[in-house]
Amino acid sequence: MDQLDQLVTTSARLGILGGGQLGKMLVLAASHWHVRCHALDPDPACPAAHLVERFVVGNYGATDDVIAFGEGLELLTIEIEQVSCDALEALERRGVRVCPQPSVLRLIQDKGRQKEFYSHHGFPTASFSLFPSAQALRAAVASGEVLLPFVQKVRSGGYDGRGVQVVKQAEDLGDLLEGPCLSETFVDVAAELAVLVARSGRGEVVSYPPVEMAFDPKANLVEWLACPARIEPQIAERAREIALDLAAALQIEGLLAVELLLSTSGELLINEVSPRPHNSGHHTIESCFTSQYEQHLRAIYGLPLGSADLKLPAVMVNILGADGYEGHPQYQGLTECMALPGVKIHLYGKSRMRPGRKMGHATVLAHELDDAIATARRVRETIKVIARPEDGSES
Amino acid sequence: MDQLDQLVTTSARLGILGGGQLGKMLVLAASHWHVRCHALDPDPACPAAHLVERFVVGNYGATDDVIAFGEGLELLTIEIEQVSCDALEALERRGVRVCPQPSVLRLIQDKGRQKEFYSHHGFPTASFSLFPSAQALRAAVASGEVLLPFVQKVRSGGYDGRGVQVVKQAEDLGDLLEGPCLSETFVDVAAELAVLVARSGRGEVVSYPPVEMAFDPKANLVEWLACPARIEPQIAERAREIALDLAAALQIEGLLAVELLLSTSGELLINEVSPRPHNSGHHTIESCFTSQYEQHLRAIYGLPLGSADLKLPAVMVNILGADGYEGHPQYQGLTECMALPGVKIHLYGKSRMRPGRKMGHATVLAHELDDAIATARRVRETIKVIARPEDGSES
Repeated sequence: MDQLDQLVTTSARLGILGGGQLGKMLVLAASHWHVRCHALDPDPACPAAHLVERFVVGNYGATDDVIAFGEGLELLTIEIEQVSCDALEALERRGVRVCPQPSVLRLIQDKGRQKEFYSHHGFPTASFSLFPSAQALRAAVASGEVLLPFVQKVRSGGYDGRGVQVVKQAEDLGDLLEGPCLSETFVDVAAELAVLVARSGRGEVVSYPPVEMAFDPKANLVEWLACPARIEPQIAERAREIALDLAAALQIEGLLAVELLLSTSGELLINEVSPRPHNSGHHTIESCFTSQYEQHLRAIYGLPLGSADLKLPAVMVNILGADGYEGHPQYQGLTECMALPGVKIHLYGKSRMRPGRKMGHATVLAHELDDAIATARRVRETIKVIARPEDGSES
Repeated sequence: MDQLDQLVTTSARLGILGGGQLGKMLVLAASHWHVRCHALDPDPACPAAHLVERFVVGNYGATDDVIAFGEGLELLTIEIEQVSCDALEALERRGVRVCPQPSVLRLIQDKGRQKEFYSHHGFPTASFSLFPSAQALRAAVASGEVLLPFVQKVRSGGYDGRGVQVVKQAEDLGDLLEGPCLSETFVDVAAELAVLVARSGRGEVVSYPPVEMAFDPKANLVEWLACPARIEPQIAERAREIALDLAAALQIEGLLAVELLLSTSGELLINEVSPRPHNSGHHTIESCFTSQYEQHLRAIYGLPLGSADLKLPAVMVNILGADGYEGHPQYQGLTECMALPGVKIHLYGKSRMRPGRKMGHATVLAHELDDAIATARRVRETIKVIARPEDGSES
């Protein structure tokens, strides 16, 4: 019996919670095998909506919506973490497979438990303390238990840079994020890295070459990323080991994106993880033997994992909504950039833009990484997403 | 004004005549830019049906169906040549752009006119004679005007190896194909090559590295193809020049796949052309900077053409229905093959298989072409498509 045959020739369908760009690219990867997908998203005009066999408008965080969507599907996966784990557990009891497992999702949804997991299992991460509220954290600073500067992270609901802030001085304490949170020792960062790994239910694991992430400090989003990261080979090797060990410790089925900080003193520290395809893996579509999306499918279906080797160095830039605009998007500079060598344009088709919103990305391939970086910089300067004038351009 | 912006943010839609695997892969390429597609195909379960924004069941060869489908679209293209040119011309008069142009399609639909075009424009092709019927050809053989062995091709309607046969001896003359046809001098073939080129309305042209095609003599289909072709560099260069010159002579907008014969005496002769994405270009999805599907979109929309350079050598094998079976497909060996290094599986999702039907393909990437060829041979021996037992397996 051929597993892939079963996925294609039976009524098996893949359900995806979320229909954003990650869901869309997962659907496109599944389409190469003709695995049919269903998606759940609150936005009927979301990027994946018109590409799936069945699209359901609903809230992936709402128990009833997720149960109604998932029932009858063979396998359910996610493109966003903020989903109802209650619903996923209920569906598991009714015989639906869920990957990544709800237990892993619950752990990752709570940054406090996530940090405790790292400590208990000996994974390197910045030292931290948990607090039930901003007030309690403020008191700990006042008592000298927490020292400035530090990083505050809310325990749940953070996403895409939201829910995280650096607290530098006493005056910032008034702006602490409310709710259960944690403080982390501030780390002097030499580089931010991301390592994608995949693990299948059969225990097979594979790691991608580390990615070097350059952050836009204002939007708190990745400005560009380069693969392979320009770091010492032994650092790269160690980063891949940490990520592989973490995937094994979590016993995850599917992709795990592990963001790491390389401190100026040479330490590698786990910063955040995402149990799904990740922004830092977009480049794999064109640059790797197996894209992160295909790899996720291989992992969750228990198929043999594919090579994560690079075909060519690559740099990815997000295409973000420009500051000062909100409305129906108008793209500038795309056609100019697609004429540049090795530039691959991806547009997500979102119907509305706002400052910092991810509207697309460009991957630049070149035989030499430096050439790709130079072209990527030019792409970033050239492409702009504003609002269409008829909308009124100021937000 | 950004051209790609116009395609994504306006109501512009791409219409595709045909929803087979070529149409499906074209839709997937368009999806990376979020260009929405509509498709027309007689089979409601065809490969592209569930991936397009609007799918219409109808006959792309029927004038009324094509006009009804195409009206209101901004641009219409094809994934198969056997379409109604009358309808396309009527749509052009109503303001719908059609690429490739109906005039080019008419020429290519008639292998007789195609051959005359080559002679008139000085393109190398096997010498030929035109006949109104099989009977007239038989008379020409009897009179010594046509010598055995020769190749008979019907002037219109041939596809995927149908409508072409080698006539070796007098006894075969009873089996001549009926209808208007041509005879071609039999060529001693050293290699069969395919060169993909693209030309945009702005006159920009680009050529892909030649592909070496190995034919399965029984099914008269490509057995495997390797890129780059293992030929002398000056032969490769000459093949690309011929294909580029032909695209320019035709003034085609879009892709042109040019199949060439390399004779044992070292001559390059144009054999057939297809004005669309082509089986010989499947490998470009993973092996080239710009896939043939993206290149076709760039060309027909007048966008800058992309690099056709190889990232890595590649070999493609078609996944065909096995002899002796007909019915709902059952795939064997897929999962075993996807574990091999560099193997990328594509399944078209066709609901029925029959002997020789193209059900999918596998592309094998490797740093060395010989390694890819070895793996491709193994894939070809391993993957089999039969009919599901419940159907009754014998055709």
